[in-house]
Amino acid sequence: MRICLIGSGNVATHLGIALSEKGHQIVQVWSPTAKHAEILATKLNCPFTTQTDSITLECDIYLISIKDNTITTLLPEIKWKNKLVLHTAGSISMEILAPYCQNFGVLYPFQTFSAGKKIDFDQVPFYIESNSPQNLEVINRLAQSLSHRVTPLDSTRRQQIHLAAVFACNFVNHFYAIAKELLGESGIDFEILKPLILETANKVISQSPESSQTGPAIRNDKVVMEKHLAMLNSHPDLKELYEQISKRIIQTHIH
Amino acid sequence: MRICLIGSGNVATHLGIALSEKGHQIVQVWSPTAKHAEILATKLNCPFTTQTDSITLECDIYLISIKDNTITTLLPEIKWKNKLVLHTAGSISMEILAPYCQNFGVLYPFQTFSAGKKIDFDQVPFYIESNSPQNLEVINRLAQSLSHRVTPLDSTRRQQIHLAAVFACNFVNHFYAIAKELLGESGIDFEILKPLILETANKVISQSPESSQTGPAIRNDKVVMEKHLAMLNSHPDLKELYEQISKRIIQTHIH
Repeated sequence: MRICLIGSGNVATHLGIALSEKGHQIVQVWSPTAKHAEILATKLNCPFTTQTDSITLECDIYLISIKDNTITTLLPEIKWKNKLVLHTAGSISMEILAPYCQNFGVLYPFQTFSAGKKIDFDQVPFYIESNSPQNLEVINRLAQSLSHRVTPLDSTRRQQIHLAAVFACNFVNHFYAIAKELLGESGIDFEILKPLILETANKVISQSPESSQTGPAIRNDKVVMEKHLAMLNSHPDLKELYEQISKRIIQTHIH
Repeated sequence: MRICLIGSGNVATHLGIALSEKGHQIVQVWSPTAKHAEILATKLNCPFTTQTDSITLECDIYLISIKDNTITTLLPEIKWKNKLVLHTAGSISMEILAPYCQNFGVLYPFQTFSAGKKIDFDQVPFYIESNSPQNLEVINRLAQSLSHRVTPLDSTRRQQIHLAAVFACNFVNHFYAIAKELLGESGIDFEILKPLILETANKVISQSPESSQTGPAIRNDKVVMEKHLAMLNSHPDLKELYEQISKRIIQTHIH
C-alpha cells in the first residue's frame, strides 16, 4: 500500500521501516521538525515536508504517529477528503478522527519502541479499530503484513490496556532506573542486576504475578522492611513508594 | 562438601538441589515444619529433623536459609562449635552470626527463587563474605562449584544491592500484578502483556534505564496522564502511585 507517515518519532520510525521492509511504499514523511523529518525520510528513501499543506494526496493510508496531545491541533489543518486516516495511539479514542475524516481507524502496536533497538514486529500484538467493516479489512491486511497477532479492539478497551502497559512497562522501567540510582550511590554497577531483571520477567511469563512474588513484603518481614525504610531516609520519595507498594503487596497476599 | 541445610523454603530448596547436583552431600535438612522438611529431604534423598538438638554435628558447612527475622531466634539454640555457619540473606549483616559461631560467613545468591521454576545457577551472581580469609576461600570454592560469578562483598554493600533488588524485582513483579488486575477488570487476559514485559526487560539489558524510558510521563503528556488518573478514580492507591511515579519520571528526565 502507499503510505504517508505523519510523524517522525520512535513509533513512526519503527513502523515506517517495518512497513517499507514488507514491501509497502512510504510516499512521504511529515514532521514539524525538519531535521527529524529528514532523518526518517533518508532511512525510508522518500521525500519529506514540514508543511501540512504540502502533504501528498496520493496515498492509500495516512498514518498519524505524533505526540498524543498534538493530534487535535493537526487534524483540522489537513484536507483528508475520503482518504483512510489512522492513528497509532493507545490512549486516544478513535472518535477524535470522526469530525475531520470520512474513513478512519486505529492501528495500535502494543510494544515499547526506543531509538536504536530493533523490534521483531511478527511478535507484536496489534490492536485495530475502524469506522466501517470495509476499512477494518484494509487495516487488518496492513497489520497482518507486519504481525500474525492482530486483534480488533474498541477504544475503551484499548485505553485500558494502554493504562496497564504504563504500569507493566513505563513504571517498571523507572524502577530499573531507581535500582540503578541506589546501586550507583554505593559505587556498584547496574550490570549486576541484569540476571535478576531477566529472571523476574521470564518467571512472570512462565508462571503468574501471584506465584512469582518474592521479597520482604510478601513474607511480611517487618525487620527487613524497617531496615530498608531507614536506608531510604535520604530519599523521602522512594521511602514513600517503598511503604505504599509493600503495603499493597501485603494486602494483595492476604486477600 | 558435607552440608546441613537449615531451612526448607525457596532458597534452601533451589540451593540444596543445585549443590546436590554438583556432587556435594546434603547430610540433613532441618525445618520447624515437618512437612516442609520432609518434602525437601525427599528431593535430596537425605534425613530431616524438626528439632534443633537433633541437628547433626557431622557437616563441613551449615547453610541457614530461613526467614530473615527468625535467624536470631534459631542461632542461640544450636551449639555450632567450630563449624562453618553461613546465612544466605541479602538484608542481614554477617555480624549477626559472630556471638554464636567461631567460623562464619555469607553466601548470597542474587536471584529470585520461586517454587517450580528452575534456575540456571551458573548465571547467578553470588556475593560472599567471611570472618577470615581461610573461611572465605572455603565459601568461594563452594560458590564457584555453582556459578562462575562469585564476588566478595561486605555486609553494607550487600544490603544496598538487596534494597535495589526489591525495586527491580519484587516491586516490578507487583507492577505486573497491578497490570493484570487492571486488564482483568476489562475482561482482558494477562497473556497480551507478555511481549511488552519481555521487551521492557530486554531493552534495559541491551541499553540503559535512561534511554529505555517511554510513556506519557517522559513525554510530559498531561492530557494522557489526566485521562489515566481519571480511569483510576476507583483505585485511590493506584492513582497515588501513578501520580508519584510519573512525577519522578518527569523530574529525572529534566535533571
